[in-house]
Amino acid sequence: MRVLGVDPGLTRCGIGVVDVAADRRATLVYVGVVQTPPGMVLEQRLLAVSRGIRDALERHRPTAMAVERVFAQHNLRTVMGTAQASGIALALGAEAGLVVGLHTPSEVKAAITGYGAAEKAQVGAMVARVLGLDAVPRPADAADALALAICHAWRFSGVAVTAGSAETPAQRAWREAEKRTVRA
Amino acid sequence: MRVLGVDPGLTRCGIGVVDVAADRRATLVYVGVVQTPPGMVLEQRLLAVSRGIRDALERHRPTAMAVERVFAQHNLRTVMGTAQASGIALALGAEAGLVVGLHTPSEVKAAITGYGAAEKAQVGAMVARVLGLDAVPRPADAADALALAICHAWRFSGVAVTAGSAETPAQRAWREAEKRTVRA
Repeated sequence: MRVLGVDPGLTRCGIGVVDVAADRRATLVYVGVVQTPPGMVLEQRLLAVSRGIRDALERHRPTAMAVERVFAQHNLRTVMGTAQASGIALALGAEAGLVVGLHTPSEVKAAITGYGAAEKAQVGAMVARVLGLDAVPRPADAADALALAICHAWRFSGVAVTAGSAETPAQRAWREAEKRTVRA
Repeated sequence: MRVLGVDPGLTRCGIGVVDVAADRRATLVYVGVVQTPPGMVLEQRLLAVSRGIRDALERHRPTAMAVERVFAQHNLRTVMGTAQASGIALALGAEAGLVVGLHTPSEVKAAITGYGAAEKAQVGAMVARVLGLDAVPRPADAADALALAICHAWRFSGVAVTAGSAETPAQRAWREAEKRTVRA
Protein backbone atom coordinates (compact mmCIF):
# COMPACT_ATOMS: atom_id res chain seq x y z
CA MET A 1 0.00 0.00 0.00
CA ARG A 2 1.45 3.36 -1.02
CA VAL A 3 -0.07 6.30 0.83
CA LEU A 4 0.20 10.00 0.10
CA GLY A 5 -0.25 12.08 3.26
CA VAL A 6 -1.04 15.78 3.14
CA ASP A 7 -0.78 18.14 6.11
CA PRO A 8 -2.64 21.05 4.51
CA GLY A 9 -1.56 24.65 4.99
CA LEU A 10 -0.81 27.83 3.09
CA THR A 11 2.50 28.85 4.62
CA ARG A 12 3.71 25.24 4.73
CA CYS A 13 1.90 22.26 3.22
CA GLY A 14 3.52 18.94 4.09
CA ILE A 15 3.44 16.17 1.51
CA GLY A 16 4.71 12.67 2.30
CA VAL A 17 4.59 9.33 0.53
CA VAL A 18 5.24 6.01 2.27
CA ASP A 19 5.05 2.37 1.28
CA VAL A 20 3.52 0.21 3.99
CA ALA A 21 3.80 -3.56 3.78
CA ALA A 22 1.27 -6.09 5.05
CA ASP A 23 3.46 -6.60 8.14
CA ARG A 24 3.12 -2.84 8.82
CA ARG A 25 6.72 -2.04 7.96
CA ALA A 26 6.89 1.41 6.40
CA THR A 27 9.47 2.90 4.07
CA LEU A 28 9.91 6.47 2.94
CA VAL A 29 9.20 7.19 -0.72
CA TYR A 30 9.08 10.97 -0.75
CA VAL A 31 8.70 13.91 1.58
CA GLY A 32 8.47 17.61 0.81
CA VAL A 33 6.91 20.85 1.88
CA VAL A 34 5.29 23.46 -0.35
CA GLN A 35 6.10 26.83 1.18
CA THR A 36 4.55 30.12 0.07
CA PRO A 37 5.12 33.58 1.55
CA PRO A 38 2.20 35.35 3.27
CA GLY A 39 2.64 38.30 0.89
CA MET A 40 1.86 36.21 -2.20
CA VAL A 41 -1.68 36.54 -3.59
CA LEU A 42 -3.97 33.85 -2.24
CA GLU A 43 -4.83 32.15 -5.55
CA GLN A 44 -1.12 31.80 -6.40
CA ARG A 45 -0.40 30.27 -3.00
CA LEU A 46 -3.20 27.76 -3.51
CA LEU A 47 -2.00 27.02 -7.03
CA ALA A 48 1.46 26.21 -5.63
CA VAL A 49 -0.15 23.80 -3.15
CA SER A 50 -2.19 22.25 -5.95
CA ARG A 51 0.89 21.78 -8.14
CA GLY A 52 2.90 20.27 -5.30
CA ILE A 53 0.23 17.69 -4.54
CA ARG A 54 -0.48 16.91 -8.20
CA ASP A 55 3.23 16.48 -8.83
CA ALA A 56 3.53 13.99 -5.94
CA LEU A 57 0.47 12.10 -7.22
CA GLU A 58 1.89 11.84 -10.74
CA ARG A 59 5.44 10.96 -9.74
CA HIS A 60 4.71 8.48 -6.97
CA ARG A 61 1.31 7.00 -7.97
CA PRO A 62 -0.04 6.34 -4.45
CA THR A 63 -2.85 3.83 -3.98
CA ALA A 64 -4.44 5.76 -1.11
CA MET A 65 -4.43 9.25 0.32
CA ALA A 66 -4.74 10.75 3.80
CA VAL A 67 -5.47 14.37 4.67
CA GLU A 68 -5.61 15.98 8.09
CA ARG A 69 -9.16 16.73 9.15
CA VAL A 70 -9.55 20.46 9.73
CA PHE A 71 -11.87 21.89 12.36
CA ALA A 72 -13.43 25.31 12.18
CA GLN A 73 -13.07 25.70 15.94
CA HIS A 74 -9.25 25.84 15.90
CA ASN A 75 -6.87 28.63 14.91
CA LEU A 76 -9.49 30.92 13.37
CA ARG A 77 -6.75 33.10 11.90
CA THR A 78 -5.27 30.35 9.74
CA VAL A 79 -8.13 27.87 9.46
CA MET A 80 -9.53 29.25 6.21
CA GLY A 81 -6.26 28.81 4.32
CA THR A 82 -5.86 25.35 5.81
CA ALA A 83 -9.38 24.40 4.75
CA GLN A 84 -8.82 25.78 1.26
CA ALA A 85 -5.62 23.75 0.88
CA SER A 86 -7.36 20.63 2.20
CA GLY A 87 -10.19 21.06 -0.33
CA ILE A 88 -7.64 21.13 -3.13
CA ALA A 89 -5.93 17.99 -1.79
CA LEU A 90 -9.24 16.12 -1.52
CA ALA A 91 -10.39 17.02 -5.04
CA LEU A 92 -7.01 16.04 -6.50
CA GLY A 93 -7.14 12.71 -4.66
CA ALA A 94 -10.62 11.98 -6.02
CA GLU A 95 -9.50 13.02 -9.50
CA ALA A 96 -6.67 10.48 -9.24
CA GLY A 97 -9.25 7.81 -8.39
CA LEU A 98 -8.14 7.47 -4.77
CA VAL A 99 -10.17 6.98 -1.64
CA VAL A 100 -9.16 9.75 0.74
CA GLY A 101 -9.07 9.23 4.49
CA LEU A 102 -9.46 12.14 6.89
CA HIS A 103 -7.71 11.81 10.24
CA THR A 104 -7.69 14.19 13.18
CA PRO A 105 -4.38 15.15 14.80
CA SER A 106 -5.37 13.04 17.84
CA GLU A 107 -6.06 10.00 15.66
CA VAL A 108 -2.67 10.39 14.01
CA LYS A 109 -0.88 10.76 17.34
CA ALA A 110 -2.70 7.75 18.79
CA ALA A 111 -1.93 5.60 15.76
CA ILE A 112 1.73 6.57 15.67
CA THR A 113 2.69 6.83 19.33
CA GLY A 114 -0.17 5.01 21.06
CA TYR A 115 -1.08 8.26 22.83
CA GLY A 116 -3.57 10.78 21.38
CA ALA A 117 -2.13 13.75 23.24
CA ALA A 118 1.49 13.05 22.33
CA GLU A 119 3.82 16.01 21.77
CA LYS A 120 4.78 16.96 18.21
CA ALA A 121 8.39 15.96 18.98
CA GLN A 122 7.29 12.44 19.98
CA VAL A 123 5.37 12.06 16.71
CA GLY A 124 8.38 13.25 14.72
CA ALA A 125 10.74 10.91 16.58
CA MET A 126 8.40 7.96 16.03
CA VAL A 127 8.04 8.76 12.31
CA ALA A 128 11.84 8.76 11.99
CA ARG A 129 12.09 5.44 13.84
CA VAL A 130 9.28 3.75 11.90
CA LEU A 131 10.83 4.83 8.61
CA GLY A 132 14.40 4.09 9.74
CA LEU A 133 15.55 7.67 9.18
CA ASP A 134 18.66 9.14 10.83
CA ALA A 135 16.89 12.38 11.65
CA VAL A 136 13.35 13.64 12.19
CA PRO A 137 12.03 15.14 8.93
CA ARG A 138 11.83 18.95 9.15
CA PRO A 139 9.86 21.16 9.22
CA ALA A 140 7.19 19.60 11.44
CA ASP A 141 4.72 19.72 8.53
CA ALA A 142 6.87 17.19 6.66
CA ALA A 143 6.88 14.80 9.61
CA ASP A 144 3.14 15.34 10.07
CA ALA A 145 2.42 14.44 6.46
CA LEU A 146 4.40 11.20 6.86
CA ALA A 147 2.63 10.48 10.16
CA LEU A 148 -0.73 10.91 8.42
CA ALA A 149 0.25 8.49 5.68
CA ILE A 150 1.51 5.87 8.15
CA CYS A 151 -1.58 6.35 10.34
CA HIS A 152 -3.82 5.82 7.33
CA ALA A 153 -2.08 2.61 6.29
CA TRP A 154 -2.07 1.22 9.81
CA ARG A 155 -5.72 2.10 10.49
CA PHE A 156 -6.96 0.75 7.16
CA SER A 157 -4.58 -2.09 6.50
CA GLY A 158 -6.12 -5.52 6.22
CA VAL A 159 -4.09 -6.62 9.24
CA ALA A 160 -6.54 -7.71 11.90
CA VAL A 161 -5.69 -6.42 15.33
CA THR A 162 -6.42 -9.18 17.79
CA ALA A 163 -8.83 -8.01 20.44
CA GLY A 164 -7.27 -8.20 23.88
CA SER A 165 -3.77 -8.22 22.44
CA ALA A 166 -1.31 -7.17 25.13
CA GLU A 167 0.17 -4.63 22.74
CA THR A 168 -1.54 -1.97 20.64
CA PRO A 169 -0.49 -1.81 16.97
CA ALA A 170 1.30 1.47 17.71
CA GLN A 171 3.13 -0.03 20.67
CA ARG A 172 4.21 -3.02 18.63
CA ALA A 173 5.37 -0.80 15.79
CA TRP A 174 7.23 1.39 18.26
CA ARG A 175 8.98 -1.63 19.76
CA GLU A 176 9.88 -2.97 16.32
CA ALA A 177 11.10 0.43 15.21
CA GLU A 178 13.26 0.74 18.31
CA LYS A 179 14.77 -2.66 17.55
CA ARG A 180 15.57 -1.59 13.99
CA THR A 181 17.16 1.70 14.99
CA VAL A 182 19.54 0.46 17.69
CA ARG A 183 22.28 0.74 15.08
CA ALA A 184 21.50 4.42 14.41
CA MET B 1 -14.55 41.98 -19.69
CA ARG B 2 -15.83 38.44 -19.14
CA VAL B 3 -16.09 37.49 -15.48
CA LEU B 4 -16.65 34.07 -13.91
CA GLY B 5 -18.30 34.35 -10.52
CA VAL B 6 -18.28 31.48 -8.02
CA ASP B 7 -20.49 31.29 -4.94
CA PRO B 8 -18.66 28.40 -3.27
CA GLY B 9 -20.49 25.63 -1.46
CA LEU B 10 -20.71 21.88 -1.18
CA THR B 11 -24.45 21.33 -1.37
CA ARG B 12 -24.84 24.01 -4.02
CA CYS B 13 -21.99 25.83 -5.75
CA GLY B 14 -23.18 28.68 -7.98
CA ILE B 15 -21.24 29.41 -11.16
CA GLY B 16 -22.05 32.40 -13.36
CA VAL B 17 -20.38 34.06 -16.34
CA VAL B 18 -21.19 37.57 -17.52
CA ASP B 19 -19.83 39.91 -20.15
CA VAL B 20 -19.58 43.49 -18.93
CA ALA B 21 -18.98 46.29 -21.40
CA ALA B 22 -17.06 49.52 -20.77
CA ASP B 23 -20.39 51.31 -20.28
CA ARG B 24 -21.17 48.82 -17.49
CA ARG B 25 -23.88 47.00 -19.42
CA ALA B 26 -23.84 43.32 -18.48
CA THR B 27 -25.08 40.30 -20.41
CA LEU B 28 -25.52 36.73 -19.28
CA VAL B 29 -23.16 34.16 -20.79
CA TYR B 30 -23.76 31.17 -18.52
CA VAL B 31 -25.22 30.26 -15.19
CA GLY B 32 -25.31 26.93 -13.40
CA VAL B 33 -25.19 25.26 -10.03
CA VAL B 34 -23.16 22.18 -9.05
CA GLN B 35 -25.27 20.25 -6.56
CA THR B 36 -24.02 17.29 -4.54
CA PRO B 37 -25.91 15.30 -1.89
CA PRO B 38 -24.69 15.44 1.74
CA GLY B 39 -24.38 11.64 1.72
CA MET B 40 -21.72 11.65 -1.01
CA VAL B 41 -18.11 11.24 0.17
CA LEU B 42 -16.42 14.59 0.65
CA GLU B 43 -13.66 14.17 -1.94
CA GLN B 44 -16.22 13.25 -4.62
CA ARG B 45 -18.33 16.30 -3.77
CA LEU B 46 -15.26 18.52 -4.08
CA LEU B 47 -14.28 16.84 -7.33
CA ALA B 48 -17.75 17.64 -8.74
CA VAL B 49 -17.25 21.29 -7.75
CA SER B 50 -13.79 21.27 -9.33
CA ARG B 51 -15.12 19.80 -12.59
CA GLY B 52 -18.00 22.28 -12.74
CA ILE B 53 -15.69 25.27 -12.37
CA ARG B 54 -13.04 23.90 -14.74
CA ASP B 55 -15.72 23.17 -17.32
CA ALA B 56 -17.02 26.76 -17.13
CA LEU B 57 -13.44 28.09 -17.42
CA GLU B 58 -12.73 26.00 -20.50
CA ARG B 59 -16.03 26.63 -22.26
CA HIS B 60 -16.39 30.33 -21.59
CA ARG B 61 -12.78 31.56 -21.29
CA PRO B 62 -13.36 34.37 -18.78
CA THR B 63 -10.80 37.16 -18.46
CA ALA B 64 -11.34 37.58 -14.71
CA MET B 65 -12.76 35.64 -11.80
CA ALA B 66 -14.60 36.54 -8.60
CA VAL B 67 -15.13 34.31 -5.57
CA GLU B 68 -17.10 35.05 -2.44
CA ARG B 69 -14.82 35.74 0.51
CA VAL B 70 -15.52 33.19 3.24
CA PHE B 71 -15.21 34.03 6.92
CA ALA B 72 -14.48 31.49 9.63
CA GLN B 73 -16.82 33.33 11.99
CA HIS B 74 -20.00 32.51 10.07
CA ASN B 75 -21.98 29.28 9.80
CA LEU B 76 -19.45 27.06 11.56
CA ARG B 77 -21.36 23.98 10.48
CA THR B 78 -20.96 24.59 6.76
CA VAL B 79 -17.97 26.92 6.64
CA MET B 80 -15.37 24.18 6.15
CA GLY B 81 -17.02 22.83 3.01
CA THR B 82 -17.48 26.35 1.71
CA ALA B 83 -13.81 27.14 2.35
CA GLN B 84 -12.71 23.90 0.68
CA ALA B 85 -14.80 24.69 -2.41
CA SER B 86 -13.45 28.27 -2.50
CA GLY B 87 -9.87 26.97 -2.35
CA ILE B 88 -10.53 24.83 -5.39
CA ALA B 89 -12.07 27.77 -7.26
CA LEU B 90 -9.10 30.02 -6.45
CA ALA B 91 -6.47 27.48 -7.52
CA LEU B 92 -8.33 26.78 -10.78
CA GLY B 93 -8.56 30.51 -11.49
CA ALA B 94 -4.82 30.95 -10.94
CA GLU B 95 -4.13 27.89 -13.09
CA ALA B 96 -6.14 29.52 -15.90
CA GLY B 97 -3.93 32.61 -15.57
CA LEU B 98 -6.67 34.79 -14.09
CA VAL B 99 -6.53 37.37 -11.35
CA VAL B 100 -9.14 36.37 -8.78
CA GLY B 101 -11.07 38.95 -6.79
CA LEU B 102 -12.55 38.11 -3.40
CA HIS B 103 -15.68 40.01 -2.41
CA THR B 104 -17.67 39.82 0.79
CA PRO B 105 -21.45 39.39 0.62
CA SER B 106 -21.81 43.02 1.82
CA GLU B 107 -19.54 44.28 -0.94
CA VAL B 108 -21.56 42.39 -3.53
CA LYS B 109 -24.85 43.71 -2.17
CA ALA B 110 -23.50 47.26 -2.06
CA ALA B 111 -22.15 47.07 -5.60
CA ILE B 112 -25.36 45.57 -7.01
CA THR B 113 -28.11 47.33 -5.07
CA GLY B 114 -26.28 50.31 -3.54
CA TYR B 115 -27.06 48.91 -0.09
CA GLY B 116 -24.70 46.54 1.77
CA ALA B 117 -27.46 45.02 3.91
CA ALA B 118 -29.87 44.36 1.04
CA GLU B 119 -32.08 41.25 1.19
CA LYS B 120 -31.21 38.25 -0.99
CA ALA B 121 -34.42 38.83 -2.98
CA GLN B 122 -33.36 42.39 -3.82
CA VAL B 123 -29.99 41.17 -5.08
CA GLY B 124 -31.68 38.51 -7.21
CA ALA B 125 -34.16 41.01 -8.63
CA MET B 126 -31.37 43.45 -9.45
CA VAL B 127 -29.29 40.73 -11.12
CA ALA B 128 -32.27 39.85 -13.32
CA ARG B 129 -32.81 43.51 -14.22
CA VAL B 130 -29.14 44.23 -14.93
CA LEU B 131 -28.94 41.18 -17.20
CA GLY B 132 -32.35 41.77 -18.77
CA LEU B 133 -33.68 38.39 -17.63
CA ASP B 134 -37.40 37.63 -17.41
CA ALA B 135 -36.98 35.84 -14.08
CA VAL B 136 -34.57 35.80 -11.15
CA PRO B 137 -32.05 32.96 -11.62
CA ARG B 138 -32.73 30.11 -9.17
CA PRO B 139 -31.55 28.76 -6.81
CA ALA B 140 -30.17 31.79 -4.94
CA ASP B 141 -26.62 30.44 -5.40
CA ALA B 142 -26.96 30.95 -9.17
CA ALA B 143 -28.07 34.57 -8.71
CA ASP B 144 -25.29 35.11 -6.14
CA ALA B 145 -22.63 33.85 -8.55
CA LEU B 146 -23.86 36.28 -11.22
CA ALA B 147 -24.00 39.10 -8.65
CA LEU B 148 -20.37 38.36 -7.73
CA ALA B 149 -19.30 38.49 -11.36
CA ILE B 150 -21.14 41.78 -11.99
CA CYS B 151 -19.80 43.25 -8.74
CA HIS B 152 -16.26 42.33 -9.74
CA ALA B 153 -16.56 43.95 -13.16
CA TRP B 154 -18.13 47.10 -11.78
CA ARG B 155 -15.61 47.48 -8.97
CA PHE B 156 -12.62 46.84 -11.19
CA SER B 157 -13.73 48.26 -14.51
CA GLY B 158 -11.66 51.08 -15.91
CA VAL B 159 -14.68 53.37 -15.64
CA ALA B 160 -13.70 56.22 -13.35
CA VAL B 161 -16.34 57.09 -10.81
CA THR B 162 -16.37 60.85 -10.46
CA ALA B 163 -15.90 61.84 -6.87
CA GLY B 164 -18.92 63.71 -5.59
CA SER B 165 -21.10 62.29 -8.35
CA ALA B 166 -24.75 62.63 -7.38
CA GLU B 167 -25.31 58.95 -8.20
CA THR B 168 -23.30 55.89 -7.12
CA PRO B 169 -22.42 53.41 -9.88
CA ALA B 170 -24.92 50.96 -8.39
CA GLN B 171 -27.64 53.56 -8.29
CA ARG B 172 -26.98 54.53 -11.89
CA ALA B 173 -26.98 50.89 -12.97
CA TRP B 174 -30.17 50.29 -11.06
CA ARG B 175 -31.84 53.28 -12.74
CA GLU B 176 -30.64 52.16 -16.17
CA ALA B 177 -31.76 48.60 -15.52
CA GLU B 178 -35.19 49.83 -14.43
CA LYS B 179 -35.45 51.83 -17.63
CA ARG B 180 -34.56 48.78 -19.70
CA THR B 181 -37.02 46.48 -17.94
CA VAL B 182 -40.11 48.68 -18.03
CA ARG B 183 -41.31 46.44 -20.86
CA ALA B 184 -40.99 43.31 -18.70
